[in-house]
Formats: sequence, C-alpha cells, structure tokens
Amino acid sequence: MSQSGVIQELIESLKLLSGIGPKAAQRIAYQLLTNNRSDAMRLGNALLSAVENVHRCPRCNGLTDSDLCSFCSSTKRDDSELCIVENVADMMVIEQSLSFNGRYFILMGRISPLNGIGPHEIGFDKLLERAADPALKEVILATSFTPEGEATALAIGDLLSKRYPHLNLTRIAKGIPAGAELEYTDVNTVAQAMLNRRVK
Amino acid sequence: MSQSGVIQELIESLKLLSGIGPKAAQRIAYQLLTNNRSDAMRLGNALLSAVENVHRCPRCNGLTDSDLCSFCSSTKRDDSELCIVENVADMMVIEQSLSFNGRYFILMGRISPLNGIGPHEIGFDKLLERAADPALKEVILATSFTPEGEATALAIGDLLSKRYPHLNLTRIAKGIPAGAELEYTDVNTVAQAMLNRRVK
Repeated sequence: MSQSGVIQELIESLKLLSGIGPKAAQRIAYQLLTNNRSDAMRLGNALLSAVENVHRCPRCNGLTDSDLCSFCSSTKRDDSELCIVENVADMMVIEQSLSFNGRYFILMGRISPLNGIGPHEIGFDKLLERAADPALKEVILATSFTPEGEATALAIGDLLSKRYPHLNLTRIAKGIPAGAELEYTDVNTVAQAMLNRRVK
Repeated sequence: MSQSGVIQELIESLKLLSGIGPKAAQRIAYQLLTNNRSDAMRLGNALLSAVENVHRCPRCNGLTDSDLCSFCSSTKRDDSELCIVENVADMMVIEQSLSFNGRYFILMGRISPLNGIGPHEIGFDKLLERAADPALKEVILATSFTPEGEATALAIGDLLSKRYPHLNLTRIAKGIPAGAELEYTDVNTVAQAMLNRRVK
C-alpha cells in the first residue's frame, strides 16, 4: 500500500536536496502538507522563480538576476584586488568574514587531471580576460587546501604570472584555525603553521 | 553586500523546512542553482502540484489526491480493525512495519489540556462517526508513549468504550525495543516491560 503519486513525487523531489535522506524527506512532506501549506507554496514559487531568473554573472561567474551581480556592479569595492574562489559558497564565506572588499572571480570547479579537468575546463580563459583589467594589482588565490584546491591554485597562479608578470599573486594563509588548541590540531597543519610563521 | 533578492528568497524559503538551518539552506540553494537546475524545477513543481491536489481523506484524515485515500479505498484491507494514530508519519511507520492490514484513522494532533486541546479539537466527533461502522470489531490505540500521547489514548479509549461497548479496544505494546540490550535501556521502559510481561 503506497502513498498517492503526487505525495510520492514530492518526497522523491525532496530527497534530491543534499543532506536530506528518505526519512527526513517523508517527514518534511507530511509537515508541509498538513500544517505548512503556505510554506510549501512559498518554496515552490521561490524555486521556480530562481530557476527562471538567476543566471551566472558574465564578469565573475557568480549568481545574479541582474545584468551584473551586486559584487561586480558595486561602486564601493576595490578594483585593484581580485579574489579567486572555487564556488559561490566559498565566496559567501569570505564575504561574511568581512576581510575582503575587492572583486571576485568564481572558477567553474577545480582542476582534476585524473578526470580530464584542466584550467580550460574551469574557465581559465575567462579569468585571463578578466585579469587584463588595468586597475588590477593583486590576485588572491582562495581555493581550498585540499589536494585539488592546491593543484588549482598552483596551476592558475603559474599561468597568470606568465601572462601578467606585473600582478601581485598571493595565496590565503594556511595555519592553525582561530580558537583552536595546538594540542588537538593535526600535525600537518601545525607543521604548515610553523613553516609559514611570520615576524610579529 | 548581499545576494540578489531572488536567491535570498530561495534561501529563506528553504530555511522553513524542518531540519534545515541557515548554512544548509545556503549550500542547497547554490547547489541547485549552479549544478542542479532540473532538480530545482522538479521540486518546485512537485510542491505546487501537491499543495493544489492533496487534501485530507474525508474518511480517515489521511493525505490523498483522490476522493478517498488508498488505505480507505483498498478492497484488500480488513474492515474489522481500525488503528488510531496521531499523524500521517506515524501511520506510514506502522505501514512500513508490515504488521497491520486494517484501516486507519488519523487524529488531528494530541490532547493537551493545558493548551485547551481536548477530544473535540483533534477530531473525536469524526472518529465517533467512523467507529459506527458495523464491520468494525477492534480499535487499536497507536498514539505515542509520550505524556500527551498516553493522555490521548486514555481519553479516546474512555469515550469510545462508553459509546460502543461492543468494540474490542487495544493499545500497542510498551516494552524493550527490538535489538536493544537491557543494560542500556532506561529503567522506566524496563519496569513497563516487566509489568507487561506475557505468557510465552
């Protein structure tokens, strides 16, 4: 004995969301349909409207529903700094850290030679174009410290410095996380923090 | 500097789903918009279609997009047994346990005297009507073993037995969960299992 097709389809669709398993999908579907129909309607409309209106920003690859995203169109940001990240979520974390007020460029993923994904596949040609901006002085490589993220930073950095030797290329710092105790930090991170020590 | 309104509205709507916090909502929104637009469209349509087509079954209070739900309209289920549950999710758990093949009746919540919620507020009058079915022989009280669930079973049981003294009223068993070790089971549950012991 199973649920009606409409309810089953709702449960199946909810399972597509990352982090939502079969049990949670079922619970959410019943909650929406018994007590929160206006929420269900709101989310349904929000999804369809976003799919229809949101596209990639032609300048930075970010998401926007205007010609340029708010980060590229703002007149209050510093044109001399460009921060390169792997995806929109990474950009938003940096933004929330309030530590950067320049422009962003979002790669279309990470280099992964084993899967045949090289610089061209992640939008390097567009980055080369973007980096021709005469106002630009510093490019910050802010990919993750995973093997792929490191490989991406290395490759992008190499290619950029060959083409634009005048640019100041930097990489975000690797070290002990804020608030962490040395005792409980993995030795690899401690070793990197020691090697990257700075004059105080 | 914030995201565009359309993306922000999508994130806010995702946060309405139970179990999804601000961070997960943001991650899901970006994933849907960068790599999974067809998933977003499918979920959006599923939500709107469910809100439009799904209503409560007039016989059992379940959810359905037909006149009667599949549990009430099936000819393969036993009309002599009626299982009373608190909500649709509870009904589905019993259904998945493959331990019951009768009919269901879903209460509109649980009795909570402190909040002014008594038998009438959770649909007892409809249950009285439903229980008048001459084929009915046994009513199984399958509300949860929380204080409110117990109070609900007690009140519903009392009222039903007064009105229909011929009905066999039963309550699902309280005891040690399947697969549990006695050593790690709370003493209250162990005491109840001891008191409710059966002849083997």
